[in-house]
Amino acid sequence: MKLYGYWRSSATYRVRIAMALKGIDYDYEPVNLLKGEQKSPAYLAKNPNGLVPILITDDGAALNQSLAIMEYLEEAFPDPSILPCDPIARAKARAIAATIACEAQPLMNLRIQKYLKEEASLDDIAVNSWLNRWPGSAMAAVEKMTAETGGDYCVGDTPTIADACLVPQWFAALRFGIDLSGLTRLNEVYERCIALPAFEKAHPMNQPDAVKG
Amino acid sequence: MKLYGYWRSSATYRVRIAMALKGIDYDYEPVNLLKGEQKSPAYLAKNPNGLVPILITDDGAALNQSLAIMEYLEEAFPDPSILPCDPIARAKARAIAATIACEAQPLMNLRIQKYLKEEASLDDIAVNSWLNRWPGSAMAAVEKMTAETGGDYCVGDTPTIADACLVPQWFAALRFGIDLSGLTRLNEVYERCIALPAFEKAHPMNQPDAVKG
Repeated sequence: MKLYGYWRSSATYRVRIAMALKGIDYDYEPVNLLKGEQKSPAYLAKNPNGLVPILITDDGAALNQSLAIMEYLEEAFPDPSILPCDPIARAKARAIAATIACEAQPLMNLRIQKYLKEEASLDDIAVNSWLNRWPGSAMAAVEKMTAETGGDYCVGDTPTIADACLVPQWFAALRFGIDLSGLTRLNEVYERCIALPAFEKAHPMNQPDAVKG
Repeated sequence: MKLYGYWRSSATYRVRIAMALKGIDYDYEPVNLLKGEQKSPAYLAKNPNGLVPILITDDGAALNQSLAIMEYLEEAFPDPSILPCDPIARAKARAIAATIACEAQPLMNLRIQKYLKEEASLDDIAVNSWLNRWPGSAMAAVEKMTAETGGDYCVGDTPTIADACLVPQWFAALRFGIDLSGLTRLNEVYERCIALPAFEKAHPMNQPDAVKG
């Protein structure tokens, strides 16, 4: 399989974590978002959304949307699982993943921040206020959700898709100056995750297209 | 089961469609977003995110996030299915659902439009431009995705979670003046869906909390 992605893309990072947790080997094809490679005709032919990542399966299908890709991986490579067995716990893990993927990340990704600054003329203080209001409050909700579901990880004592979404979100939130100081439980989960080899392998700085320094 | 929701909420509408397609009976508990009932302590105790919908299962679990709820329903009530059988087609249906739930709806829901107007001081023209740029381009991507996957519906010839997301998104897009004129395939799918009894039952205007006229 081949993963098209970008080292610092939150959605690509989620899929890298899922694949690393499952021990799946893949080729990695960088798509330089800063150079606009996601808008090239060749890339748009694979993903009309012009977003990363996409996963090319062994039979040549191009799959997009990180949540959908992770569900595909879970069905195609069930062991080890990245969803709990219990139906309610599965729903809770998916709800945490969706809270991050639907309420937090879409409101902070680069194209939106760029639009807010350049088209809506928001200054840096106003953009920071936006980031704390929307992605910030979504993360505060996840902190409360994990109070009910969490063990060592977001849901129970094994990493799930919830953690595969949390870690990239936390990484991006730190980068963009979102206040995480009250989120003590999520901070513990984050630290526990990044100490695992699978999360280390998936880390942006460990990708071939990472820009260092 | 009991569904807490709001008649015009896109995410609630998705879950109503999924339940109607599966023929699942449930009690409906309106949460008046205009009165701020989603921020009441009683509601926040059920869903710290302060968003609708939540589904209370027969054993009392409170499930949030429409994508997670639909996956729960699919697992708990597999027949009739709202996902294709084929693994790649399943991934494509989930990708369309996620494109709507992650790229379109989060950037157009009421709280975001209100913030853009009141906090970011965007005028109506600028807000309309935002809506066409972000939710609009996500829907254009879905139009292209369904060119590959579509039959009578978004993916194949049976309604799936992709259609359960498309129809509420289309309804909201019409309401907020997003230009849908180029999306001929999606328009056909939308018209085909709303002619079905399950989609009719789930329609906002057919809910007990609908405000008519």
